[in-house]
Amino acid sequence: MQQLIDRIRAEGKVLPGAIIKVDGFLNHRVDTALLSDLADEFAKYFPIDKITMILTAEASGIALATICAQKYGVPLLFAKKAKSDNIEGGLYQSDVFSYTYKKKVTYIISQEWLHEDDHVLIIDDFMAKGNAMQGLVDLVDAAGATLEGIGIAIETGFQEGGRTLRARGLRVESLAIIERMDESGITFRH
Amino acid sequence: MQQLIDRIRAEGKVLPGAIIKVDGFLNHRVDTALLSDLADEFAKYFPIDKITMILTAEASGIALATICAQKYGVPLLFAKKAKSDNIEGGLYQSDVFSYTYKKKVTYIISQEWLHEDDHVLIIDDFMAKGNAMQGLVDLVDAAGATLEGIGIAIETGFQEGGRTLRARGLRVESLAIIERMDESGITFRH
Repeated sequence: MQQLIDRIRAEGKVLPGAIIKVDGFLNHRVDTALLSDLADEFAKYFPIDKITMILTAEASGIALATICAQKYGVPLLFAKKAKSDNIEGGLYQSDVFSYTYKKKVTYIISQEWLHEDDHVLIIDDFMAKGNAMQGLVDLVDAAGATLEGIGIAIETGFQEGGRTLRARGLRVESLAIIERMDESGITFRH
Repeated sequence: MQQLIDRIRAEGKVLPGAIIKVDGFLNHRVDTALLSDLADEFAKYFPIDKITMILTAEASGIALATICAQKYGVPLLFAKKAKSDNIEGGLYQSDVFSYTYKKKVTYIISQEWLHEDDHVLIIDDFMAKGNAMQGLVDLVDAAGATLEGIGIAIETGFQEGGRTLRARGLRVESLAIIERMDESGITFRH
């Protein structure tokens, strides 16, 4: 999506360790007008009429997923990192290794809110190695729900997350895929 | 706000330890149509034309704050819990004790995204003892920005968060204030 690519080129910063910093518009300060355009773009790729639930993981995916849920007229469900008192028994859970936090993170959703008749679109702001995404896919599988697709704003295509999920036959649509990045610039997949 | 009170009465569950569970529509599964109505309600209490930034804390405040930012046409900034590699130097930070996580949490925002000419409206889904909220107020103060007000969806009025902030002269508007709750029911402030 050219608008997102242009925004990354204009405002993104490449940090050591294959990290692209886009915290001016996507995952710290958030431009909701841009998110609205991203939600419209996802709607071109997925069968929105069939979707009954948007699923994301806390925290940085929530803003984009909220706008998508609002646009498509369905509830948002966000997987929580375990350890809140506010969630009692009856959980689906999935352990993932977080490269951001350098430790295992357990994502949980309440069994009360995801059912086997749900048709789920997973939305996230970012995918690299895909661990968090794999955790979300596992939660959908645990509920016996149907995964209609995975929509990502920015994917680092030189990491294995997207390749692994597509190899499993899952529909993954990333609106900007970074093929290569270093101090000299960013190359996007066409 | 009667709509929110009705929703809490219909779907909220009172858990031991003065916890009200509203995870079917506010902070796990999220009803964005309701959030949109809450954002319209906040707009009656605060000088929306002066607001330049919506501020919240990850994670559960992000959905409501996103809808508010979208409605009011301003950016959203969400304070992050420290320990992400994705934020480099130049931070404002505030330590708060989290009763949810039973430990100290450090909230951070990048100095790049909050300035002294900003007029900030803080939005959160929930306030009890007010520790996280105090942390957000401190971040606004650290940036030298103007705090125009604090909008909360649900406040537990029998805990000290709201009282403390109002005693400091801050404008705090909670759309539903719970005075008392136990297994037999919930009493709201009128």
